[in-house]
Amino acid sequence: MSNGHGQHSTGETGDTTEYAEQRSGYEIHPWKLVRNGLSLQDLAASESLFTLANGHIGLRGSLEEGEPRVVPGTYINGFYEQRPLPHAETGYGFPESGETAVNVTDGKILRLFVGDSPFDLRYGHTLKHERALDLRSGTLDRYTEWVSPSGTPVKVTSRRLVSLVHRSLAAISYEVEPLEDDVYVALYSDLLANEQAGRPSSDPRDAAVLERPLKALASAARGQQAVLMHRTRKSRLRMAAGMDHILQVPPGANTTIEANGDLARFTVTAQIPRGQKLRLVKYLSYGWSHRRSAPALRDQVEAALAVGKLIGWEQLLEQQRAYLDDFWSSSDVQIDGDPGLQQAVRVSMFHVLQCAARSEGQGIAAKGLSGIGYDGHTFWDAEVFALPMLTYTAPSAARDHLVWRMDTLPQARERATELGLAGAAFPWRTITGKECSGYWPAGTAAFHVNSAIADAVSRYVAATGDTQFDAEIGTDILVETARLWISLGHYDDGKFHIDGVTGPDEYTAIVDDNVYTNAMAQANLRAADAACERNPDQAARFAVTAEERAAWRHAADAMIFPYDEDLGVHAQSEDFTTQDQWDFERTADEHYPLLLNFPYFQIYRKQVVKQADLVLAMHLRGDLFTPEQKARNFRYYEARTVRDSSLSSTTQAILAAETGHLQLAYDYWAEGAFVDLGDLHGNVDDGLHIAAMGGAWLVAVAGFGGMRDHGGTLTFAPRLPADLNRLRFHVRQREAVLAIDIARHEGRVSAKYELVEGEELHTTHHGEQVHVRTGHPVRMPVPAVPEVEPVDQPAGRAPVRRVPQS
Amino acid sequence: MSNGHGQHSTGETGDTTEYAEQRSGYEIHPWKLVRNGLSLQDLAASESLFTLANGHIGLRGSLEEGEPRVVPGTYINGFYEQRPLPHAETGYGFPESGETAVNVTDGKILRLFVGDSPFDLRYGHTLKHERALDLRSGTLDRYTEWVSPSGTPVKVTSRRLVSLVHRSLAAISYEVEPLEDDVYVALYSDLLANEQAGRPSSDPRDAAVLERPLKALASAARGQQAVLMHRTRKSRLRMAAGMDHILQVPPGANTTIEANGDLARFTVTAQIPRGQKLRLVKYLSYGWSHRRSAPALRDQVEAALAVGKLIGWEQLLEQQRAYLDDFWSSSDVQIDGDPGLQQAVRVSMFHVLQCAARSEGQGIAAKGLSGIGYDGHTFWDAEVFALPMLTYTAPSAARDHLVWRMDTLPQARERATELGLAGAAFPWRTITGKECSGYWPAGTAAFHVNSAIADAVSRYVAATGDTQFDAEIGTDILVETARLWISLGHYDDGKFHIDGVTGPDEYTAIVDDNVYTNAMAQANLRAADAACERNPDQAARFAVTAEERAAWRHAADAMIFPYDEDLGVHAQSEDFTTQDQWDFERTADEHYPLLLNFPYFQIYRKQVVKQADLVLAMHLRGDLFTPEQKARNFRYYEARTVRDSSLSSTTQAILAAETGHLQLAYDYWAEGAFVDLGDLHGNVDDGLHIAAMGGAWLVAVAGFGGMRDHGGTLTFAPRLPADLNRLRFHVRQREAVLAIDIARHEGRVSAKYELVEGEELHTTHHGEQVHVRTGHPVRMPVPAVPEVEPVDQPAGRAPVRRVPQS
Repeated sequence: MSNGHGQHSTGETGDTTEYAEQRSGYEIHPWKLVRNGLSLQDLAASESLFTLANGHIGLRGSLEEGEPRVVPGTYINGFYEQRPLPHAETGYGFPESGETAVNVTDGKILRLFVGDSPFDLRYGHTLKHERALDLRSGTLDRYTEWVSPSGTPVKVTSRRLVSLVHRSLAAISYEVEPLEDDVYVALYSDLLANEQAGRPSSDPRDAAVLERPLKALASAARGQQAVLMHRTRKSRLRMAAGMDHILQVPPGANTTIEANGDLARFTVTAQIPRGQKLRLVKYLSYGWSHRRSAPALRDQVEAALAVGKLIGWEQLLEQQRAYLDDFWSSSDVQIDGDPGLQQAVRVSMFHVLQCAARSEGQGIAAKGLSGIGYDGHTFWDAEVFALPMLTYTAPSAARDHLVWRMDTLPQARERATELGLAGAAFPWRTITGKECSGYWPAGTAAFHVNSAIADAVSRYVAATGDTQFDAEIGTDILVETARLWISLGHYDDGKFHIDGVTGPDEYTAIVDDNVYTNAMAQANLRAADAACERNPDQAARFAVTAEERAAWRHAADAMIFPYDEDLGVHAQSEDFTTQDQWDFERTADEHYPLLLNFPYFQIYRKQVVKQADLVLAMHLRGDLFTPEQKARNFRYYEARTVRDSSLSSTTQAILAAETGHLQLAYDYWAEGAFVDLGDLHGNVDDGLHIAAMGGAWLVAVAGFGGMRDHGGTLTFAPRLPADLNRLRFHVRQREAVLAIDIARHEGRVSAKYELVEGEELHTTHHGEQVHVRTGHPVRMPVPAVPEVEPVDQPAGRAPVRRVPQS
Repeated sequence: MSNGHGQHSTGETGDTTEYAEQRSGYEIHPWKLVRNGLSLQDLAASESLFTLANGHIGLRGSLEEGEPRVVPGTYINGFYEQRPLPHAETGYGFPESGETAVNVTDGKILRLFVGDSPFDLRYGHTLKHERALDLRSGTLDRYTEWVSPSGTPVKVTSRRLVSLVHRSLAAISYEVEPLEDDVYVALYSDLLANEQAGRPSSDPRDAAVLERPLKALASAARGQQAVLMHRTRKSRLRMAAGMDHILQVPPGANTTIEANGDLARFTVTAQIPRGQKLRLVKYLSYGWSHRRSAPALRDQVEAALAVGKLIGWEQLLEQQRAYLDDFWSSSDVQIDGDPGLQQAVRVSMFHVLQCAARSEGQGIAAKGLSGIGYDGHTFWDAEVFALPMLTYTAPSAARDHLVWRMDTLPQARERATELGLAGAAFPWRTITGKECSGYWPAGTAAFHVNSAIADAVSRYVAATGDTQFDAEIGTDILVETARLWISLGHYDDGKFHIDGVTGPDEYTAIVDDNVYTNAMAQANLRAADAACERNPDQAARFAVTAEERAAWRHAADAMIFPYDEDLGVHAQSEDFTTQDQWDFERTADEHYPLLLNFPYFQIYRKQVVKQADLVLAMHLRGDLFTPEQKARNFRYYEARTVRDSSLSSTTQAILAAETGHLQLAYDYWAEGAFVDLGDLHGNVDDGLHIAAMGGAWLVAVAGFGGMRDHGGTLTFAPRLPADLNRLRFHVRQREAVLAIDIARHEGRVSAKYELVEGEELHTTHHGEQVHVRTGHPVRMPVPAVPEVEPVDQPAGRAPVRRVPQS
């Protein structure tokens, strides 16, 4: 595996190396991700980037013909297999088994034979090959002209969708057409289980490799329809995958259907005269359950297939487009002056939406449904980096994720008890809610996952006014996490301390009084108190007393935030600023990410920061810091942050924008937005970085838009980087959708606040009250950014200077 | 597994529950460990306690008949198999394979058949059964009268030795005699490889279970002699085990010999008339190598067998006794007033001697050669708790161990490089010198193992004046460990800090400026400087410059020792004294040891101490602390130390004695001395706690003798607990053997200093100069112990009040 930082090859500040948009064969388009030609080297990356998903089903962008392929990847959210978690030396509370997402029955496969040649782009001659992920139609479109090794030219086109409207449905339209003479073709439309898995890896970020995880339960085939039923061997989850077909083919074609064990196949053999074509629409449906029987699951997928056929392909396409039109109209981010970044931001938003839109009852995984890097687990970054976009653009998807967290509350309570704590301790990484972290200093000790969930709850409630959620779900989560913090902390000299935890910066572990953790815990405690005030019945159900609420308020008020008076900066955690410095000058480029090249022992005890930690506190709890503290802290931590995590640049961009480093903010925005398009961490093959994609939206809105929601109040402080002429974005707040249009006219920047939906909205613009009503946009001048001294990054770790394409 | 603290059942201070001496069937005897009758429940413990060993070969005290048995156990020091070390989440520098000691070919087996009944004490009727480990003859003696299920009474006696004189030899004399009528007997004398192993365990302190670790290479049998040759499967070490026999039997007996694969067997069948007996002397020899061929190893064991037969059984016994007479005459500890403790201390000293006497080229494992708990690994406690006794009583054994460390210096250098450090980083646990720790916060981070080795080097050199060792071995180790400390530390505000390490207290991990670590590193740096001064040629060979030595001195002088001014105590590590308190009142007895019942996360962040840490610093670096600091520190840490390690009570006893808590010191002495005899940690089945056994000597000499060797100068400060009339011990210093006799006459305690060997010795007695010459003993009065307020232990963790038996 590459070290993932090829773009830092020279390591000089101001390096203008381009991102992958030019190098990798992707064309810039405002609403599509287009790729011309087939690059075997880039195949796995394109499989990830061309993923279609709806939060329930995920289909990687592998070619219909099945080969060439790297990771074929078909996922159903929440469907996992258990695997052992072996420990060289075990300890109390170490999880003994983990969970890993499973590549389920692959229904994408349409193996084509032209004459006697398999249609395989590695052989014969490709005249034209183009694929495009269309962000408005929600389809993956493909156009290929190919000459078989025996000299027969054909045109193959396909269009694929995973329905954002019908949760268990996907469909593929596939057409074959002779380009010269009549051709004989055979087309195998498959359901294939237990596809061969990849190789094991020593990179801790990779997934466990499961060999043949699915055990065949039953199969059925009739007409043009087939179903395979399987279960996992250890977790004993059952699933069914079904396919049905509508075939349009010249007369004289033969078809057969069969299903057995791991393979179901619908076969079409036909002669296609010149000027005519074979067209097959394949409907796919997936279902799984740990309770329902295989026959019940079969009925479920067959019913979904019947509905799909009834709706029909064209109507599915229309519904998909309508869904997305609605989404974009109230969420689009428009960037004038950087078409590449425009594309990257929209692609990112599309993928965040896709992995969450219909997740009902399941969580948002770090890789969405685009791959099983990190074993398909959900982490804290779902709440911190993906949920803000969803909360302000597609709130029902944010709600779904938080409902899933709520469903895992019993496991979180059990875990807290096991750890000798009160309330609920949500897992560091999980599919079902069970802790699956095999290394507790960067797992269990990272209790800030709990405050991230609480913060997402507070944000969702404030943004939507969803009182039912607030009463029945939000309060439960807030109370149980508040109880956790009380049991985690202790008083010393009148201050409330939280010792021995790990903050977001995983290069500094098991520390006392991590500012981020304490700041978020403080907000958590206060939010729980407020939720109990709003929902006294629910509080009573949890036996919350006035004394308990007073204890929360007292702990919150007494919370300590380590501050180094000598340096005038906050210590990320107690004593951090007196630790030894990391020797960046003598750390070679190829030794990043550090975690793969240095022992934790060395990393932990030195002042080196993997990802924004104190700086993230300054974003999410900006109300705790003065502007001067933010400026000094940002400068201090900027010089020590290596960005070995894709989560880092987003936060650095936001604080760079706030502290007046607009060019740096712009550079970081691009870095985050191109994590996957540019494969900046060398592992897009394993799936997309959903949090970085959520970050691409966050930098637009919280970075340049300056949006903050401290205490549930939306405020803005728009700014515009020098290279852009205009930045427009949308934020949904309860019934209102606010569009903010930041633009430069004759050297002056102003921001226009306009309601796209809803009747009125109160907010602030750089601290000034703004009252927006329907039909009455408000334009506000953007104050000049004060001059600031440039900040330094560690040697060799400056971001690439973003230069928009002309 | 039991929690190992049954003796604390009531948890009250002053609880006078007896130790196992009365409960477990062991009889008190000044020079023997005697056990009457067979208890199946206690069988594994007696196998451990009756171990015979010589530092090369270890034979657990299993019965000759092979059954009943729990852990048969035959070990050759250094002979190990590799095993995978799996990690749920791996990290850079995590060892991927470990080492585990192997139960090798068992030569102890003499299966007896009486008539048609196997001789098995679980069946038939046992009239008398007694076994005794004789500490002066160095033999395990056994006497059994038994009636077979078919009613035939026989007497079986045996005597077993592992020669302390002839390193690769062991021998068993075995006699069978009818008690009434003539009997027909068959006796199978076996060599048996790949005996069935035990069950896997979730206790991290247990050993890995290897199934059939040995692969047969060859076998040979002729006359009454047989040899089996095997190799391990992964580590590919070769070994040979040989046996030969001298048979005395009534006429008409048949014998056969055979050897094949995993079994060699010498069979005797005979009719024994009443009044006569069958006597078999079995000679055993073991050898192993990773270089030498199987035939060469065969020749080696056959040669040893030939030598053994030439010497003969009686002569082997005489040599064994002479060796031990010599040892005891210059090392014995005599206790008047507590016969049980007297026995426990001598048994302890005997086992420490046994596991080290002839270890030539191999280390002293935590369990010696009595079991493979902890995988047969050597830890830092060998240097800190076992080597002091050996250094001052059997210095060549101490030297052997340190020579083994020297031999592993290349691996230690490699490990340092891998960790990004200079010099050498000795492993936390190992057989070959390779790091085998699977959990780095309590393994790799415990760099104090390096200062323990350096300290043992300094102690050995000062005690023996072994200039050749000093020049060729000691200096190398001191220089490379000094370099390690320099690379581990850094300067901040002019002070030298060592951050992110774990001290002896494994309940507090990855901390900054652990006082013990810093104090021992300081001594290490100064010792390296002094060694270079003494050995300029060796220093030059290591390219030690004047600048480097100045840097060592500077770091030593600038070393920081955290001190809490408010409390007036040293902080075990930075910020320790402000951490939350452990809730001892609410920790049930059965929740000890804490590590098996609470997550590390909770244990690390609270003020709970597994084992003496700051208190150990006050022993080994007592010169750093004022008497007042010692008193306050002892009181503070005593209230927070739970003694979940068998290493703790020794140190607490020593500092209790120094700070005037003589009864407490006496209680802790007994606790340490009875760790194995009383099975206080519930795991004596897996082998003896050699460090606790070394501690039994240390408490006598450093505790009540008050011996210190700061900077290589021996000083004493004798005291006597109220229940004892007299305590006499020996200390060897260069050519001199000093006997110190602390006795009470008419209520006054005095100490007599007398030379048993050598011509003169200068020391101090409670700070007063003492000059002892041959034939001129010096008697000094022991000052009265000042009154002190009692100290408290954590609730429920007070030691058992020691009450000597009448």
